[in-house]
Amino acid sequence: MLSFESDYITGAHERILKRLMETNRESMSGYSKDIYCESAKKKIREACACDDAEIFFIAGGTQTNQLVISTLLATHEGVVAADTGHVSLHEAGAIEYSGHKVLTVPHVDGKIMPEALKEYLKGFYMDGNCEQMVFPGMVYISHPTEYGTLYSAEELRGLRSVCDEYKLPLYLDGARLPYALMSDNTDVTLPMIAELCDVFYIGGTKAGALCGEALVYTRKNMPAHFNTIVKQRGALLAKGRLFGVQFDELFTDGLYFEIGKHAVKLAMRMKRAFLDKGYKLHIDSYTNQQFVILERSEWERLREKVGMSFWENIDENHLVVRLATSFSTTEEDVEELEKLI
Amino acid sequence: MLSFESDYITGAHERILKRLMETNRESMSGYSKDIYCESAKKKIREACACDDAEIFFIAGGTQTNQLVISTLLATHEGVVAADTGHVSLHEAGAIEYSGHKVLTVPHVDGKIMPEALKEYLKGFYMDGNCEQMVFPGMVYISHPTEYGTLYSAEELRGLRSVCDEYKLPLYLDGARLPYALMSDNTDVTLPMIAELCDVFYIGGTKAGALCGEALVYTRKNMPAHFNTIVKQRGALLAKGRLFGVQFDELFTDGLYFEIGKHAVKLAMRMKRAFLDKGYKLHIDSYTNQQFVILERSEWERLREKVGMSFWENIDENHLVVRLATSFSTTEEDVEELEKLI
Amino acid sequence: MLSFESDYITGAHERILKRLMETNRESMSGYSKDIYCESAKKKIREACACDDAEIFFIAGGTQTNQLVISTLLATHEGVVAADTGHVSLHEAGAIEYSGHKVLTVPHVDGKIMPEALKEYLKGFYMDGNCEQMVFPGMVYISHPTEYGTLYSAEELRGLRSVCDEYKLPLYLDGARLPYALMSDNTDVTLPMIAELCDVFYIGGTKAGALCGEALVYTRKNMPAHFNTIVKQRGALLAKGRLFGVQFDELFTDGLYFEIGKHAVKLAMRMKRAFLDKGYKLHIDSYTNQQFVILERSEWERLREKVGMSFWENIDENHLVVRLATSFSTTEEDVEELEKLI
Amino acid sequence: MLSFESDYITGAHERILKRLMETNRESMSGYSKDIYCESAKKKIREACACDDAEIFFIAGGTQTNQLVISTLLATHEGVVAADTGHVSLHEAGAIEYSGHKVLTVPHVDGKIMPEALKEYLKGFYMDGNCEQMVFPGMVYISHPTEYGTLYSAEELRGLRSVCDEYKLPLYLDGARLPYALMSDNTDVTLPMIAELCDVFYIGGTKAGALCGEALVYTRKNMPAHFNTIVKQRGALLAKGRLFGVQFDELFTDGLYFEIGKHAVKLAMRMKRAFLDKGYKLHIDSYTNQQFVILERSEWERLREKVGMSFWENIDENHLVVRLATSFSTTEEDVEELEKLI
Repeated sequence: MLSFESDYITGAHERILKRLMETNRESMSGYSKDIYCESAKKKIREACACDDAEIFFIAGGTQTNQLVISTLLATHEGVVAADTGHVSLHEAGAIEYSGHKVLTVPHVDGKIMPEALKEYLKGFYMDGNCEQMVFPGMVYISHPTEYGTLYSAEELRGLRSVCDEYKLPLYLDGARLPYALMSDNTDVTLPMIAELCDVFYIGGTKAGALCGEALVYTRKNMPAHFNTIVKQRGALLAKGRLFGVQFDELFTDGLYFEIGKHAVKLAMRMKRAFLDKGYKLHIDSYTNQQFVILERSEWERLREKVGMSFWENIDENHLVVRLATSFSTTEEDVEELEKLI
Repeated sequence: MLSFESDYITGAHERILKRLMETNRESMSGYSKDIYCESAKKKIREACACDDAEIFFIAGGTQTNQLVISTLLATHEGVVAADTGHVSLHEAGAIEYSGHKVLTVPHVDGKIMPEALKEYLKGFYMDGNCEQMVFPGMVYISHPTEYGTLYSAEELRGLRSVCDEYKLPLYLDGARLPYALMSDNTDVTLPMIAELCDVFYIGGTKAGALCGEALVYTRKNMPAHFNTIVKQRGALLAKGRLFGVQFDELFTDGLYFEIGKHAVKLAMRMKRAFLDKGYKLHIDSYTNQQFVILERSEWERLREKVGMSFWENIDENHLVVRLATSFSTTEEDVEELEKLI
Repeated sequence: MLSFESDYITGAHERILKRLMETNRESMSGYSKDIYCESAKKKIREACACDDAEIFFIAGGTQTNQLVISTLLATHEGVVAADTGHVSLHEAGAIEYSGHKVLTVPHVDGKIMPEALKEYLKGFYMDGNCEQMVFPGMVYISHPTEYGTLYSAEELRGLRSVCDEYKLPLYLDGARLPYALMSDNTDVTLPMIAELCDVFYIGGTKAGALCGEALVYTRKNMPAHFNTIVKQRGALLAKGRLFGVQFDELFTDGLYFEIGKHAVKLAMRMKRAFLDKGYKLHIDSYTNQQFVILERSEWERLREKVGMSFWENIDENHLVVRLATSFSTTEEDVEELEKLI
Repeated sequence: MLSFESDYITGAHERILKRLMETNRESMSGYSKDIYCESAKKKIREACACDDAEIFFIAGGTQTNQLVISTLLATHEGVVAADTGHVSLHEAGAIEYSGHKVLTVPHVDGKIMPEALKEYLKGFYMDGNCEQMVFPGMVYISHPTEYGTLYSAEELRGLRSVCDEYKLPLYLDGARLPYALMSDNTDVTLPMIAELCDVFYIGGTKAGALCGEALVYTRKNMPAHFNTIVKQRGALLAKGRLFGVQFDELFTDGLYFEIGKHAVKLAMRMKRAFLDKGYKLHIDSYTNQQFVILERSEWERLREKVGMSFWENIDENHLVVRLATSFSTTEEDVEELEKLI
């Protein structure tokens, strides 16, 4: 059976496993104070062209979002996100659990447009009752978005400019970042993200690691005593080396980008195959996630042989499925899929 | 340099890494809904002789404590712990962050004695003002304790009996459980723990895994919608297989117990060596952690060649150090240590 | 200057002040355990025709909403409210501070329609990803709504029926309840509210008291240890007698209903005056709040002599103002207003 | 029956009720933006000799403590208090509910001694594990303490000095402040408190008001957007005038101090009476609360005719009771008590 359900259905890139094996018996300090964490941070700083970057490794994306958002916001503030944003919908209320509201702005293809953000902020401060409302305290975007779409450099600069005007930090969720960076259809680079965002994370889990995300603060703005705060939130792992070794390898000889390139290439081939056979796309994604509209009967037939994720219903006869590629998807997998559709 | 700083300074038992390698390309459902998690749960239920056990895998111990305690307690309740308990002192306020007070009882060698617990509870309900105080809502113990000491079966039964009288759930933190179970000086077994505790966790991180703890609910008392709650707390990992494969291997052919046995044997040899050479112990531990009193000059000398953890000061000339063994400690390591002391 | 800004701009009904004076030197137990609280509860139970009603007095409305909602919900649940609901917008994130999300349903004149509720709930459970979303755990409505509108008995029964189907408690915010109960245009009674809602509150602050709301649990469903919980939230006042004396008086000889009747009568007269003079209403309210559309120039002129609340902008030339009546509004006030418009 | 149970068993000083009556029909802005709140703040600033003081009125003491502490602390910090402090024991976990730990220091007669504070802080930072512990973030004291005892000016300066050394804000809970300020046995004044503390509150509820506490920030250190934060916590009352009128009257012609003087005078007379008749005091209080040791039989006899609060058991035959005076206690009450003991 073919498996395109997600980009987290297999283990880790073999180069990562190999390094875990090689370093296994080395004695190292706990709590991410080991040499591999240090080395990984150095390489990430270089990849971001950001010497000042402060980096912390966290096990998962929801936890990272919860940590960043709840420590950046003042108590009376909420985070502004697209209404389709991961933090708005699919993190089981993790932000609210931390005491903060998610303030939503209507999305365009999963993105917050600079104009929509500006309109929202302007409206907020014009409301005579805003003193008894949740104040916007930061902006959350994902890149790629939950729909696999990408911000252009211009859009990202536009958001930065609105954020500057309203003195709001900009946070980018990069759970699937390599598939954005290596897309054929992007002018956004990692250094640009580091330049335009106050904080962002470089996803590991959905990008070929066993687990782990590299959280990057770009303006010497990591909260004081962050170690203690991470411990308090239950997010400090004793064997931080697990993150260190993985990210050190991911940022050695461009492995991270290679993983992105590989998956995007196969996703583009998959997209072309669907289009060639007359399928319609729900959204035109240039990253590793593809959203295809299927007739219900086709869905019933195909799912016997192809693992896909149900995304949403269109009408009685049509639905959207998501197919994702990853480091472990092969040319053969896509070829076989082409035969089946 | 010899390393006895802790039991989390090396990676994972090689059998675990091997299984991760072997299963790496298998496609599996995310969020711990894979076959290895299922298999691991089955084996753990057997090892606990508890068919009803509901099991969940969490990345780290503090997070597990935070999750269990905050979901078991009613909002007006606190958790009763020894004043030396991990949740009382060394989790950076993780329990308070979740909204609950840690109510402390004076420890004896790191343990809560049944009589002390009873006295505290009796006193609480006799206080005319208890309506405006935090109610005791559960009891937390660690086994082994933070001092490497162990509850006897009688003590554990005594705690259970007090808990029954006051209708309080009993929770056991088993971060270093194998070193308790395989101690020469214990009459407490895993099935006994499952019988006497409402919930407990089987530590992985400090017991030879890369990360992960197996949380066990023994009375069909796992909170409803636990998956969603774990997600809300940021504690649900996408690649839950990482836990599944590791715990499945740990509970195959007794690896978990073997790891415990190995580390305890070496710790006992280390203890004997210290005693033979006239050193005094801070506490008489029969588990993998040893607490030795050193003269300050000896400490300065030894630390050049032996990794140890500073534990606490005794007086101007003496201090306590902790030395721990683990799956990766070798006979040679201990031999070399013997020569150095 | 005339004052119609709100229903909380003057003190308390004089009968209440008189009773506070008369009872001032009586020694009473603190924390709402006095005879006046008991007497008030008895009278409220009678007015609600609900012998089982459990009642608690809280200082303000936001605090009451926060307390009720956060104690009724399970940790992974949110409260369903109209997108215009007070808890959604104008309580500065009080619900989120307590850890829970407000799940919004599009309003119709400030109300949640039973069909809209059902559609939302049905959609939620059909979503394949709902396990990683916030579960709907209760329904919040206000009566009158923030727009001064009223649920009909049929609508209320419809909501109850949907709540029954999905096993959700129904909570009614009665901050301005007397103006609903005494409207000419309602078939909803206090006993009906007690019958159809699991919990609701009878507003005091905006209904002629100095402060205080009477929270009513109708199904013996007040949380256990509620006293302690209220203390924990900082909401337990030492001199609970202040609530007891006030609500005892409000529910003596129908004072509460008299206050409602008086304010509604004057509001209806005011509405007629606006309509007669050709003004347009933003919404047709039959309660003590009136929402009138003004030209901007008219607004500038009128606000010199009449206290009103700016509500929202309609277009460049028009805006909506709110005028409210209360126990302290007089016929003369309305007459004078009639002359000014 | 005589009533000495507490200082909150009667209503309010009659001058306060009279002013509420007189101002009742005046139209005023809600949410403490009225002229009486402004006037009261001005008078309090004068009484404190602190022109910069920022003042906010809150309904009750626990709520005030919760608000101040949770907004002053960083997320990883706790509040240092005496182990007998109100926030440590008798607020049902209000501080922990807000996410923070109460770090306790052993008390001396209910007080934190400067040396004990220093020792605790020194020890904390010497602990090699402090990164995984809750950091001390502020110091909480009550004056008078829960035992009716008083800090001397020297002790207060000592605490200030330790706080300066460790850069910690000092917060004083003045729930019963007038009984401290008007004690015969104090050299601490209100301006001195304003000078030495970063924030404190002037109690109203237990000092002759119906409800309300005046929270005073002395270093222009009131948190930004405090209004919104207070609303978020459910602590913003619509009819803030209730606080304004009361505190304005309390600080007119020295009423607040007069109330303190009156109650302390009667308490001293009561103390003398007990001592003259051979009773022993549990603690030597110079404020309005007296703690007397009674034989159990005496307790049984006396409680038939005198309202007192049970405080704690001494041994099988003896217990401690608390008797408190207030604005409403009369010379006759004390005379009658003298006859009964």
